[in-house]
Amino acid sequence: MSLMLDEISEQPEVLEKTIQAERLKVERVGKFLCEKDIDLIVLVARGSSDNAALFGRYLLEITTGIPVSLAAPSVYTLYAAKLKLNRTLVVGVSQSGEGADINQVLESAKNSGAFTIAITNEVESSMAKIADETLLIHAGREKSVAATKTYTGQMLFFYMLANALSDKKIAFDIIPNLAAQALKLKNEIKNLVERYVFMENCVVVGRGMNYGNSYELALKLMETCYVVAERFSSADFFHGPLALVERRFPVILFAPQGATRNGSIDLLKRLMELNADSFSITNDDEIARLSSRALRLPKHIDEFLSPIPFVIPAQLFAAFLSEAKGINPDAPRSLTKVTRTV
Amino acid sequence: MSLMLDEISEQPEVLEKTIQAERLKVERVGKFLCEKDIDLIVLVARGSSDNAALFGRYLLEITTGIPVSLAAPSVYTLYAAKLKLNRTLVVGVSQSGEGADINQVLESAKNSGAFTIAITNEVESSMAKIADETLLIHAGREKSVAATKTYTGQMLFFYMLANALSDKKIAFDIIPNLAAQALKLKNEIKNLVERYVFMENCVVVGRGMNYGNSYELALKLMETCYVVAERFSSADFFHGPLALVERRFPVILFAPQGATRNGSIDLLKRLMELNADSFSITNDDEIARLSSRALRLPKHIDEFLSPIPFVIPAQLFAAFLSEAKGINPDAPRSLTKVTRTV
Repeated sequence: MSLMLDEISEQPEVLEKTIQAERLKVERVGKFLCEKDIDLIVLVARGSSDNAALFGRYLLEITTGIPVSLAAPSVYTLYAAKLKLNRTLVVGVSQSGEGADINQVLESAKNSGAFTIAITNEVESSMAKIADETLLIHAGREKSVAATKTYTGQMLFFYMLANALSDKKIAFDIIPNLAAQALKLKNEIKNLVERYVFMENCVVVGRGMNYGNSYELALKLMETCYVVAERFSSADFFHGPLALVERRFPVILFAPQGATRNGSIDLLKRLMELNADSFSITNDDEIARLSSRALRLPKHIDEFLSPIPFVIPAQLFAAFLSEAKGINPDAPRSLTKVTRTV
Repeated sequence: MSLMLDEISEQPEVLEKTIQAERLKVERVGKFLCEKDIDLIVLVARGSSDNAALFGRYLLEITTGIPVSLAAPSVYTLYAAKLKLNRTLVVGVSQSGEGADINQVLESAKNSGAFTIAITNEVESSMAKIADETLLIHAGREKSVAATKTYTGQMLFFYMLANALSDKKIAFDIIPNLAAQALKLKNEIKNLVERYVFMENCVVVGRGMNYGNSYELALKLMETCYVVAERFSSADFFHGPLALVERRFPVILFAPQGATRNGSIDLLKRLMELNADSFSITNDDEIARLSSRALRLPKHIDEFLSPIPFVIPAQLFAAFLSEAKGINPDAPRSLTKVTRTV
């Protein structure tokens, strides 16, 4: 059993601990930001944290109406641009808090008048020292190189922030329970990966609230399984990359009920016409019926709360597939835990 | 000879015509926007136009200091979010001007108080009717499904806008001439593609000003050559995907002189250690020396003006490789010119 699998299983507990420990702080920060009347949110991250930020972008724009930008770190680090960031909230997201470029962006943004928040797993990190406020994931050390419990911990903070910045209340309290329900798919997934042992390429598709998850699963498959995984929103997928599927690439979909349902169904019907293989993570009967394989989550899960319970089966899939392929998911070649890019 | 190759060759003329015809309008719009004191720019696009927008994002942030966000159309179309867009410039980018989702975003943004601009090749399009101002690419009809002359036409408008919104003057007048110089590589590229006829996968890397180009070349390779092309910034590339390279994927780099030079050199040295194949589009001696193959552009090209002359050899590469693989680059399977996603 890998560290990655252990850490995937810890997620309900990590999420619960983080809610309990950080709830009041997020409420206080949210109140302060509402009074400050911020009109832009910039998210800064790399790797898995950037995938969590991609989720955060959709959630924050939709629930708060404040425009969100995903920072291009090079703008600050390579080109030394000074951006006009008054009334801007800048959120750095990093498991280790030691990504040199992310920290440089946070410092530059602070100097340009932005209010800065760090979302990290390390309270003593450089990032925590730079930021005006630190939101701490209570995950304990993450030992596997493949980030799992810190990824969902980061996502949780976007729920808590969105809740604090918006009139719309978000029932993030039930997320640890939804995560526990998702973990029940473990044995089913362990069997399912047998079908994909010799998969070398695939396409991962998600949209809206689950778009970040499609990037995250693709990254996990590349890191831990050496599967070449293309990732697309189901909208962009029709702009060219569909040609790839005819080459017998399986398509993996994050396909919950809700706003993206019709798009998922259209895509699955098109894939059927092309005789392509599809595998859906879903809580919808019709989507499951149209897919070559499906992992079923409870129907009652609201689309807005789906990203964490939906990514857990994907994490399990990558971890089991890695083992089935004879790879050690905790120590992929050519990778280290902290990437210090500038 | 394909329509795609014809249209690639038309670019110096299209760029020159567009500058002459639209210069005064862009200056007038820029002056108006400076008086309006906008504090956010949102770019909205899909497909190749989105790759042009990705370039525009770097250029506009770096030269004007105004933060830029690449819109997530689903936020508006699927989730019907109303964003707070006072003092915001929203720029829609679409060759045809008929992308239904892009147009829906522009309409929603206009209703939220944004000033809207359309960059398009079709003056009578729906998009031109919605936007407050239209910047028209003077490319004539683009007949190939693979966008080339409209892609660089869109990029040109970002130069003209950046010039009008910033104190820093940009010598965009010389771009048509740089484009003509890039076209001189045609015969060399026609020979070079022989080496890649059986390439099935590759990684395309670019950073900063050439990051959008890496997405564009990857899209062209997928659309017209059915090559599975991963695209990354050289920074993100060290976060996991480097493992792919060990599987004998060639790496194609946009590697000009300037701010990204050191990063390109570090990456090429790492690739040499891994015995990986590399192919650089560059105007730097050291970078060319470290690459398995290199296409050389004139040394005097400034990094900020490199994206258009650097993408032209990439377009030629895709067009010739498509033909060498026995594919018709003008009519890829499963693709139509106007994609109507909502």
